[in-house]
Amino acid sequence: MTDVQNQPDERGIEIKRTGVTKLFLPFFISDGDDVQQVAAQIRFTVALVENLRGTHMSRFAEILTAWTTRPIKIPDVEKILLNALEKLQTDFAAITLAFKFFIKKFSPVSKKFSFSPVDCEFIGELTRGERMKFTLGLVVPYTSLCPCSKEISDFGAHNQRSVCRVKLTFKDFENISIKNLVHLIETQGSTEIFPLLKRADEKFVTEAAYQNPKFVEDILRDIVIALRGVENLAAFEVECENFESIHNHNSFASHKEII
Amino acid sequence: MTDVQNQPDERGIEIKRTGVTKLFLPFFISDGDDVQQVAAQIRFTVALVENLRGTHMSRFAEILTAWTTRPIKIPDVEKILLNALEKLQTDFAAITLAFKFFIKKFSPVSKKFSFSPVDCEFIGELTRGERMKFTLGLVVPYTSLCPCSKEISDFGAHNQRSVCRVKLTFKDFENISIKNLVHLIETQGSTEIFPLLKRADEKFVTEAAYQNPKFVEDILRDIVIALRGVENLAAFEVECENFESIHNHNSFASHKEII
Amino acid sequence: MTDVQNQPDERGIEIKRTGVTKLFLPFFISDGDDVQQVAAQIRFTVALVENLRGTHMSRFAEILTAWTTRPIKIPDVEKILLNALEKLQTDFAAITLAFKFFIKKFSPVSKKFSFSPVDCEFIGELTRGERMKFTLGLVVPYTSLCPCSKEISDFGAHNQRSVCRVKLTFKDFENISIKNLVHLIETQGSTEIFPLLKRADEKFVTEAAYQNPKFVEDILRDIVIALRGVENLAAFEVECENFESIHNHNSFASHKEII
Amino acid sequence: MTDVQNQPDERGIEIKRTGVTKLFLPFFISDGDDVQQVAAQIRFTVALVENLRGTHMSRFAEILTAWTTRPIKIPDVEKILLNALEKLQTDFAAITLAFKFFIKKFSPVSKKFSFSPVDCEFIGELTRGERMKFTLGLVVPYTSLCPCSKEISDFGAHNQRSVCRVKLTFKDFENISIKNLVHLIETQGSTEIFPLLKRADEKFVTEAAYQNPKFVEDILRDIVIALRGVENLAAFEVECENFESIHNHNSFASHKEII
Repeated sequence: MTDVQNQPDERGIEIKRTGVTKLFLPFFISDGDDVQQVAAQIRFTVALVENLRGTHMSRFAEILTAWTTRPIKIPDVEKILLNALEKLQTDFAAITLAFKFFIKKFSPVSKKFSFSPVDCEFIGELTRGERMKFTLGLVVPYTSLCPCSKEISDFGAHNQRSVCRVKLTFKDFENISIKNLVHLIETQGSTEIFPLLKRADEKFVTEAAYQNPKFVEDILRDIVIALRGVENLAAFEVECENFESIHNHNSFASHKEII
Repeated sequence: MTDVQNQPDERGIEIKRTGVTKLFLPFFISDGDDVQQVAAQIRFTVALVENLRGTHMSRFAEILTAWTTRPIKIPDVEKILLNALEKLQTDFAAITLAFKFFIKKFSPVSKKFSFSPVDCEFIGELTRGERMKFTLGLVVPYTSLCPCSKEISDFGAHNQRSVCRVKLTFKDFENISIKNLVHLIETQGSTEIFPLLKRADEKFVTEAAYQNPKFVEDILRDIVIALRGVENLAAFEVECENFESIHNHNSFASHKEII
Repeated sequence: MTDVQNQPDERGIEIKRTGVTKLFLPFFISDGDDVQQVAAQIRFTVALVENLRGTHMSRFAEILTAWTTRPIKIPDVEKILLNALEKLQTDFAAITLAFKFFIKKFSPVSKKFSFSPVDCEFIGELTRGERMKFTLGLVVPYTSLCPCSKEISDFGAHNQRSVCRVKLTFKDFENISIKNLVHLIETQGSTEIFPLLKRADEKFVTEAAYQNPKFVEDILRDIVIALRGVENLAAFEVECENFESIHNHNSFASHKEII
Repeated sequence: MTDVQNQPDERGIEIKRTGVTKLFLPFFISDGDDVQQVAAQIRFTVALVENLRGTHMSRFAEILTAWTTRPIKIPDVEKILLNALEKLQTDFAAITLAFKFFIKKFSPVSKKFSFSPVDCEFIGELTRGERMKFTLGLVVPYTSLCPCSKEISDFGAHNQRSVCRVKLTFKDFENISIKNLVHLIETQGSTEIFPLLKRADEKFVTEAAYQNPKFVEDILRDIVIALRGVENLAAFEVECENFESIHNHNSFASHKEII
């Protein structure tokens, strides 16, 4: 059968990224001692030289299916990308794996545990002959309590669920701990949040938030300071968003830094 | 050209609803004196008798396009459905128009105004020879403040953005006011919310919520009582959901009633 | 500490459903010999008698956390609901678990395999003293090819990704096979779809669809006929939707049946 | 009342973007002679100097509410940003307005018209003393038909709804036409798509697509070539995505260029 993708192309345009997106596969993701099976949403692309018409779309699913049977650690992302360089005869490959990862959380007073879902992204980019550029995306929830509302009100203070989205690019991707990074971020809000709170825990969390009021800008700045202390970070982007309880819209702050 | 849709069908299955969905059109929606142009997401279907193979899909967009130039009041939905009975030669037609409608809101102390978006649905069902069955869907936001958290804590109380989703089926659809129904619902939370709050307003809203703590069940019950007083209601469904500030999940309560 | 939820309520309104929603937990779901860990999105509610103010929200997460360590089969959903009747002292409980489940699929000619994600819902409702009412929700993709377009065109025919959403309520929930039900539904389209297709497979699938043109109404009727043959079904709802390649909106048909 | 936002901050971090997001307001958007009222989703932020604790969140809604009564052309976005520099005493402001805009489309043979929704974004960034940097985001649908499937199959060819997302940054934002840019992009697919097609139109569109097979890479390259011819463009980003009819995942290609 004719290989139409392999036809020459004369438009003279090299394409940096072509491949598949919104592909879902079951992967085993490993973080420290913890291995979880996840439903990963995948974007997997390669560069296409200017004189070729198309890439071979079926090979992306083929490469990835082979990775459904063994745990994937962050350094394995580089191996997946090396598979792509080889099987798709290209000098650049990129992948994003997006999935929910569960963190075990113990409530602050009763010490009961449950699981908190964190949206994670493994983003790898590999140029032939170089090391992978790896970026970890995380979406971490917490509570914020408004300092202005507390200050001007005779009692109470508006507070709300809030979220931090980070993209962390690492110089060295051998020893990244999702769990530790989530903890670093979630403790910068007015208080951490928990999947399971008995009454003594609810009292603790309510009072902790009231004693630690923070604007969206305060939380952003404290996360920036915390991230500056993370070993091996090359760059980071942070977005903080508070789902304001007194509005139908959100407050927002963002920051980028190259270290 | 052959009319393949008009071929006979021998499977013996009458289809209650066939048509188009996720069609978007610009409509002018009228509520009292207020007319707003909206981007309506539409599901528009008819019944198909058992001995016909398919309906004529292009006629749905044709009927609706004719309604893009004049204001649509709720009773006009019946006229749209009558168009469908006629042009698609059927005895049953149904339509859902989903759109954002903006309510003017004045902040409680400074009296500054802005607009609050409400997700609306006009749901009409028409059987030949009967009056339209009309259901109004609304999604209305407000604040809830937790009575348990307030009671057990030495200071503060967790609160959060919350939302009520109602489906209101009317006996008579001539004099329905979106604006008034939204107001009836949003005032059952711990406090109303506003798009624009100056500091004096924020103090007012914070204190109002603290003085009016309500569980998701309290708000649900108060909305049920409020809706029982609405003239011309034949049935209603209510869902209340609080985006808990101390959890990454929501609390929820729902109720249905036929009057 | 005061148990504010346990206060008496005088509004005289029994609430059929109160609890938690958008809670995520990692469950092991079992289908035949296949066990997969999933990130389940959960709605878990109970009835609340008219003279009590609120339910105990923390118990829902507590009950469910205990189920994160062992495989859940469909009959186990009844056990989870029995836990709720007991721990929340109520006569009615309902749960929805929504998750992606992966089906192994072999391409039609090359016989290469990969995994196809199916959106599943386990919906259980339990009234004290009765057996659980169990409903399985599935979202199953396939291709549709338009009979009208094929008939009137000199060459080609528009085709598109399409999807069937079913809710299947069973009389007996002991021997339900997700895998078999997905297969029953996906084979009613113009052709099945696959995560991994080599060129010989692509030729096969393209020609199979062209030789089997079906309107959205055809597919709906064929699924209805197929479901009537499923053992132990008490009722079903079917929605078929084609993401029309020649429009920016979808064609749609739906049907309900009680057996 | 204390102005807590105005307190000094000692963390030494200038914040580039702080403000509001997911705010919705009704705006009148003007494109050539066409004015449409839209429900705009807004992100509106400013820079915050390192020695101030917070910005004044209520002023964003105040500035924008004043713009709900008159048509907004693209150059007006600069005026909105100038309002922000002034009222929030800052040297940088950015805004994104996202909304559906309707394009009138005539079907190719029957010449019947209806409206096609296009997702638009107006993205403005203003540094004091400079001109606004303006970027237009568009999401434009069309059909793609697979050249490989056509070539290897004895009859038929898989085709599907597809979409192009562009971000176009202009050197000069005085004479941008949304309508013309949408047309430039949608005509690069295998065929344009339409909201309303009678049978003669459906035949036309089916045959046009079959005679113009294009991979996702072909469409991307043709759009790149088309965009290089647009006057006043400073830079562009293009993403093309085909909702493959034979898979449950999509094919994808992207490209960026600075002119």
